[in-house]
Amino acid sequence: MGGDHAPEEIIAGAIDAVAEHDVRVVLVGQAPRIRRELDRHGAIGKIPIVHAEEALDMGEGALASWRKPRSSIAIACHLIRQGRASALVSAGSTAGVVATSRLRLKGQQGVLRPAIAVTLPTRPRPTILLDAGATADVKPEGLVQFAALGTAYAQILLGLERPTVGLLNIGAEPGKGDKVAKRAHELLAGGGHGLEFAGNVEGHDLLAGKVDVIVADGFTGNVALKTMEGTIRTAFAEVRDAMTAGPAARMGALLQRRRLQDLRDRLDPDTYGGGVLLGLNGTVVIAHGASRARAITSACELAHRLAAGRIVERIREQVALTRTSRFGRWTHGERDGTDGRPAEPGDRPAEPAPPADQPEPDRGEPPAAP
Amino acid sequence: MGGDHAPEEIIAGAIDAVAEHDVRVVLVGQAPRIRRELDRHGAIGKIPIVHAEEALDMGEGALASWRKPRSSIAIACHLIRQGRASALVSAGSTAGVVATSRLRLKGQQGVLRPAIAVTLPTRPRPTILLDAGATADVKPEGLVQFAALGTAYAQILLGLERPTVGLLNIGAEPGKGDKVAKRAHELLAGGGHGLEFAGNVEGHDLLAGKVDVIVADGFTGNVALKTMEGTIRTAFAEVRDAMTAGPAARMGALLQRRRLQDLRDRLDPDTYGGGVLLGLNGTVVIAHGASRARAITSACELAHRLAAGRIVERIREQVALTRTSRFGRWTHGERDGTDGRPAEPGDRPAEPAPPADQPEPDRGEPPAAP
Repeated sequence: MGGDHAPEEIIAGAIDAVAEHDVRVVLVGQAPRIRRELDRHGAIGKIPIVHAEEALDMGEGALASWRKPRSSIAIACHLIRQGRASALVSAGSTAGVVATSRLRLKGQQGVLRPAIAVTLPTRPRPTILLDAGATADVKPEGLVQFAALGTAYAQILLGLERPTVGLLNIGAEPGKGDKVAKRAHELLAGGGHGLEFAGNVEGHDLLAGKVDVIVADGFTGNVALKTMEGTIRTAFAEVRDAMTAGPAARMGALLQRRRLQDLRDRLDPDTYGGGVLLGLNGTVVIAHGASRARAITSACELAHRLAAGRIVERIREQVALTRTSRFGRWTHGERDGTDGRPAEPGDRPAEPAPPADQPEPDRGEPPAAP
Repeated sequence: MGGDHAPEEIIAGAIDAVAEHDVRVVLVGQAPRIRRELDRHGAIGKIPIVHAEEALDMGEGALASWRKPRSSIAIACHLIRQGRASALVSAGSTAGVVATSRLRLKGQQGVLRPAIAVTLPTRPRPTILLDAGATADVKPEGLVQFAALGTAYAQILLGLERPTVGLLNIGAEPGKGDKVAKRAHELLAGGGHGLEFAGNVEGHDLLAGKVDVIVADGFTGNVALKTMEGTIRTAFAEVRDAMTAGPAARMGALLQRRRLQDLRDRLDPDTYGGGVLLGLNGTVVIAHGASRARAITSACELAHRLAAGRIVERIREQVALTRTSRFGRWTHGERDGTDGRPAEPGDRPAEPAPPADQPEPDRGEPPAAP
C-alpha cells in the first residue's frame, strides 16, 4: 500500500516478480483493492493476499508505527515473525517502515543498532553505503558492527568473499575525524574482527569505487547520499541547459540523446534507489517512494536473494566475529543484556520487554528517509 | 610558499591583485626566491617582502604549527597580530594553515570554535557552507555560533542585510537529526539570536540555492562538500565519455564544447574552491592547493574585501547577539572563561594560557582539508 504509485504499480511489479523471476510473493494490504488489481492483470489466485485494514501514509513518520498496529507493514512483519514470510518489501515512507519493522521484528541478537544499506552506482561494480539514515547517533562499536552488516550484505549481493570496507571520514590519515570516527578507525585498524578494513575514505571517494562497503553513522551517511543525489540532478539539469542553449548545441544534443539518457538512468536515484534495513530479525527492503513496477520487481528479487542467502544468519556470524574478538572493549551493554556475554560491573540492568503494541522508548527515534 | 604552484603562481597572482585591484599585499616567504620572481615580472620594489626561513610542506598537518614556529604562515600571523597586516592568504596545506593560525591568532573573544566557510556555486547567488572541516566535534551552541559567523560573512560577501540560514540535517521536520542537530534546531528555532533561521535543509539542497548560509558541524560539512565535488567530477567524466562514445555523439560534443567547458569551470572546485577560516583574531583565506595566479588574485581580493568589511568586528557583534539572547543556555564555558560573562557554578576553571610556542592541547586537533 505504500509508495507514490501504490497499489497499482506495486502489484504490477509483484506480478512480474512471480511470473518472470520465480519469487514467491504475498500481497499485504486492502484485500478488495488488491483483488481488483490482480483481476485486471488476470492474476487472481496466483498470488495470495493477506488483508490489512490500515496503511501508513507517505507523510507519516515513526509515530505511525504504534498508532497503526494493523498497518500493512505491521501485518507483513507479523508474517515474518510467524515464519510465513522471509522478507518484506515496501515503497512506503522510510521513517514509517523503519520504525514499524524495528518495533515488530526487533533487532537481531547481538546487533546494537540497525542500518540502512544503499547501493551506489559505481563502476566496475557497485559500492554499498551504510548507514543511510536508520541510526543517527552511533557509537564507535556500532560503526564496527555496521562494517560487519555491510560485509555480510556485500557477500550476498556482490558475491565477494572478503569485501573491502572503508570508513567515511574527513581525511585519509588515521588520526582524522570526530571522536566517533577516530575511535572507530582504531577499532577497525586493530584487526581481529574478520573484516577487510581498507582505511578511511572521503566524500569524493563515494563514487570512486575504491572499496566495496563504506561505513558511516546514519547522520553523515544520509547527508552524503542526499548530497550525491542532489548534485547528480543539478549537474544533469545544468548539462541539459548548456546543451540546448543555442542552435548548434541543440543539434549536438539530438546526436547524443540516447547515450545521455542511459547515463542519467544509471545515476538516477529513482532507478538505483532504495535501501535494505539490516540488523533486524528479518529482511526489510525499502524501495524508493517513486518506484514503478520495474523497481518493485527488482526489490522483490533483491529480497528473495537476501533471504535465500540467509542474510540474517550471515550477519549473526559476521557480528559474532567482531564481538568475540573485541570482547574486552564492550564496556556497556547498549541493548538489553541478551547478547550472551556475562554481566560486567558497568552493565545496565536488563530492561523488561515492552508489551507487543507499545513502542520501545529508547529505540523509537524517528529515522530519516534515505 | 604554499600550494602546488608556489611560489611562482602565488607571486604572479599577488602582482595582479596589487596592479589591477588595488589590494595592498606583503609577500611572506623565502626572500631570495620571492625577489627573483618579482624581478622576472619587473615588480621589484612594488611589493614589500617579509622573510620567513621555513615553510609548511603540503603534506604537513597540524603538528607543523609548533614544529615550525618560523614558517611563512606563522610569520604572516605575526604581522596580523602586530597590526601590520589585516588578513592572510595561503594556498598551503589546509590542516597546517588552520592549526598554525589557530595557535598564532587565537580565537576571537566569545567565539567557541572557528569554522571554515566555503562558497557553493548555486544560482542565482552563491550559498555559503560552514563548517567545511575546522571543527569536527561541535556542540549545539557551537552550531548556533557558526550560524552567526556565516551570517556576518554573507552580509559582507553577498551584501545581504539578513541572509537566511539553514541547518544541514537528515529531514525537513524539526525532530530530525542526531542529538546535536536536534538541539541546535531548537536553539535556532527559538529565535532571539538576530539570525534569519529558515529551518533544516538536506543534502540535496546543497546546490539548490534555497538559503544563503548552510550550517553543519565540521565532520558532516566536510563530507558533504567533498561528496559534492567528487560527484560533480564523476558526472562530468561520465558525460564526456557518453558524449564521445560514437561518431554522432562526438560530432554533438564538438557543437557544444564551449558551453560545457563554461559549465565545468563554474562547478569545478579548482575554480570556485577555497575557504575562509572565521572566528579568529584576523581573517585567513585558504586558497585551493591547486590555485594558479587567477585564483590567488581572487583570494587576495576576497581577503581585502573581508578586511575592509571589518569581518572580525561583524562576527563579534553577531555572536554577541546570540550569546546575549541565549544567556541562560550557556551552562558551561567551553573556552577559557574570558568571554566576559560572570562565572557560574558549572564553569570549569580558566586554563592558564600556554606559552607562545607551545600547542594548546585541547585546540590542537588536526582539522581536515576542505
